[in-house]
Amino acid sequence: MTSKLDSTGNSAVVGERGAGERNAGASSCKVALLGFGTVGSSVARILCERSNTHLRLTHVLNRNVARKKVDWLPSSVQWTEKIDDILSSNADIVVEVMGGLDPSEDWIRRALTSGKSVVTANKQLIAHCGPELIGLARQMKRQIHFGASVAGGVPVISGLHEGLAGDELFRICGILNGTCNYILSQIETNGIPFATALREAQKLGFAEADPTEDIEGLDARAKLAILARVGLHCNVRPESIVARSISAIDAVDFEYANQLGCTIRQISWAELKTESSTKLSTKSGTKLSTEPNPKPKGEELFAAVQPALVELSSPLARVEGSQNLVMATGTYGGQTVFGGHGAGGHPTAVAVVSDILAIARSQQAAITMTDAGQSAETTPTVTADFTTKHYLRFLVKDRPGIIASLATILSHSGINIDSVLQKPGCPKSHLPFLITLEECKASLVEQALQQINSLDFLVQPCLHLPIL
Amino acid sequence: MTSKLDSTGNSAVVGERGAGERNAGASSCKVALLGFGTVGSSVARILCERSNTHLRLTHVLNRNVARKKVDWLPSSVQWTEKIDDILSSNADIVVEVMGGLDPSEDWIRRALTSGKSVVTANKQLIAHCGPELIGLARQMKRQIHFGASVAGGVPVISGLHEGLAGDELFRICGILNGTCNYILSQIETNGIPFATALREAQKLGFAEADPTEDIEGLDARAKLAILARVGLHCNVRPESIVARSISAIDAVDFEYANQLGCTIRQISWAELKTESSTKLSTKSGTKLSTEPNPKPKGEELFAAVQPALVELSSPLARVEGSQNLVMATGTYGGQTVFGGHGAGGHPTAVAVVSDILAIARSQQAAITMTDAGQSAETTPTVTADFTTKHYLRFLVKDRPGIIASLATILSHSGINIDSVLQKPGCPKSHLPFLITLEECKASLVEQALQQINSLDFLVQPCLHLPIL
Repeated sequence: MTSKLDSTGNSAVVGERGAGERNAGASSCKVALLGFGTVGSSVARILCERSNTHLRLTHVLNRNVARKKVDWLPSSVQWTEKIDDILSSNADIVVEVMGGLDPSEDWIRRALTSGKSVVTANKQLIAHCGPELIGLARQMKRQIHFGASVAGGVPVISGLHEGLAGDELFRICGILNGTCNYILSQIETNGIPFATALREAQKLGFAEADPTEDIEGLDARAKLAILARVGLHCNVRPESIVARSISAIDAVDFEYANQLGCTIRQISWAELKTESSTKLSTKSGTKLSTEPNPKPKGEELFAAVQPALVELSSPLARVEGSQNLVMATGTYGGQTVFGGHGAGGHPTAVAVVSDILAIARSQQAAITMTDAGQSAETTPTVTADFTTKHYLRFLVKDRPGIIASLATILSHSGINIDSVLQKPGCPKSHLPFLITLEECKASLVEQALQQINSLDFLVQPCLHLPIL
Repeated sequence: MTSKLDSTGNSAVVGERGAGERNAGASSCKVALLGFGTVGSSVARILCERSNTHLRLTHVLNRNVARKKVDWLPSSVQWTEKIDDILSSNADIVVEVMGGLDPSEDWIRRALTSGKSVVTANKQLIAHCGPELIGLARQMKRQIHFGASVAGGVPVISGLHEGLAGDELFRICGILNGTCNYILSQIETNGIPFATALREAQKLGFAEADPTEDIEGLDARAKLAILARVGLHCNVRPESIVARSISAIDAVDFEYANQLGCTIRQISWAELKTESSTKLSTKSGTKLSTEPNPKPKGEELFAAVQPALVELSSPLARVEGSQNLVMATGTYGGQTVFGGHGAGGHPTAVAVVSDILAIARSQQAAITMTDAGQSAETTPTVTADFTTKHYLRFLVKDRPGIIASLATILSHSGINIDSVLQKPGCPKSHLPFLITLEECKASLVEQALQQINSLDFLVQPCLHLPIL
């Protein structure tokens, strides 16, 4: 399971498998990377470290290559500043992680036209030109994937397109901008004004020097437009979605929101007006009906990115810091939640590499979902001997000396007691009390319990649970 | 976007598209259904109602067909009690939703051998014979998908296999059994003994007459074995995973757990012992390192299904009723969460239909992720005019008659006030107070605010947020 970097300089086959494995001998899938910033270098890192794939990084394009070059990439990787070097190469997949519309749009068009498939993390590009680029890819019999364009490492694009393909979704809502979520969380937790929270977020690198795109909701609405297209099959221009700033939110608003049992989040919301969406609450989505379900009319889409009050019990209220969360609601499957790291080099790179792998899989016909069970599988030793804190709950007939007996046995086993708790008002003949243990192996506790469970003051065997 | 059922009796083409669309003329994908219980009938329902797909239900197999037959399926669907009718038919995909190992295993083998692809929701079968069936499918150049075998409608199998394919996962944990989660929630909420909670769950249909599989963790460990295979690439026999009963949990344990800032859940946990897993906490997973990440040793898998204490702040603690939740943690992407309805006819059927669509897509070469943007897309009118409750926060220079002025304007607009809140101790010159409004359109409120914002007692314009 170690990755093999070819030190001979001929090629950088990432995680090539032994001769006995399925893909041995199959030609590898060649990847060219446009952009070597935070995301780009993470993509390169994963491609080099990851085992069990048949991907080969062949080119890296960036401005000022001399400044960017790193020593941990195989010498076979070609560094360039010219897109033509990539277009004329034999790379199969071009990965665009430069951002911005110019020159990304032009270069992606030219890559597709040159017969290459494309993976991009560029939300503005996909939100604005997605349909045309998809059309061009189809025309060229190539693919364009954009799983990293929304919610970074959270696999929501593939979740909507593949995992929930069987449903008819009518609502997608979520928290799509980690910067806003971080700033709002800080106002809430520390009672500071918006301007202070923004300044601190900028200092910590959670907000950019010009935070307009995030604060005003422009970033989130580009992502919402993409989700509406993939999940609701709605062609929506990002500009047609109302975006409202979070800048007017003050600490006092969190105090009032809390009095209402709510908090305030920047919420992106897109909902097709359907009969079913008005009838189904988010909790009754699983109701099995034998009546035909109403179809979406699909004529009106309610969509906005705005600060809003959400109930404290909602998953939306519990999204912490810069995390992202997407909730998709369908006529048949009810509500499904996807959550995780919405930004950052490594999580976004995971989404990019997942897209590369999807294209690689589809290129090697007959290798599909089917290989779920067999790709470089190991057969490990299985153990339940977790090292955790432990919860021991006793039910005893009370008498003096019980704690002493238990503590003696535990200490002889080398187990440290963390706390002893006993709730008041219980009968002496059936007295429940609790001992928590410091971190140790479960097997050690089980051994001690064999001795303990034979003690005559126990009304029933001790209940032993791990504290995970 | 309506589904078209062929009333001529020749065929039941589901959601056939117009001549101008991509698939017009392409042959449809024929689906045979084994089992017409809760999940089976939901699958049939979705196949008939759903638009924009090219799937055709051709056969339904069930014992005692006469009793099972329904009038809402097209007359072209053949009902049968004999597997040979299916195997000798021209069905492309056989969907097994009967459950149990016998005869499911034999029939699935025969279906694959007959050159059909298979979709199954059968967790015990996949946990026990997954690798062999996958091998057989590969040998026959067919596919077997099992997305519905774990967590029902939650797209976690495709999420692990596709969406997070670019990561190296080392831990998967979650709540995989809705029955246990429901029972534990009831003990917690109502302070009732385990036996009472079980009986009530049985009465309500959340637990079976013989609840052994659920209560003792056998159901969850079959699912965990599947997740370990798909996500951690570990070949694990379900029997090798320790499963511990939840039956010893009592109401008093929730009291003690709460004192520790925890609750108790049936937790399924599988973790490869790696250096990275000990170094990374779930929150630091996004740290961008330029050092190579340590590789999993892959020699030891910590795995168990057991009741355990989890912190109240963990997503695991917040899973309600019969919902499921899976958390996957990877070296690069950190922690990703998938949650939703883990059981029930419709959600499970969504997973089945998603798998059918995945096979159908892969059969029609060149139709991939690429069509995300174009499948029967509509271009709706976009509006932000949500009907919700509203939050209006004012900052005023206090004087008598303010509420009266505001109430008059609102009532003239036909808007009802829900509550008025004012926190104590604020300066009269900058007094923040709150008015919440009953449900009405945002546009109505905005109109009223145009009048309100010109009132001279306002220190700043009113902050208006929807309460979602």
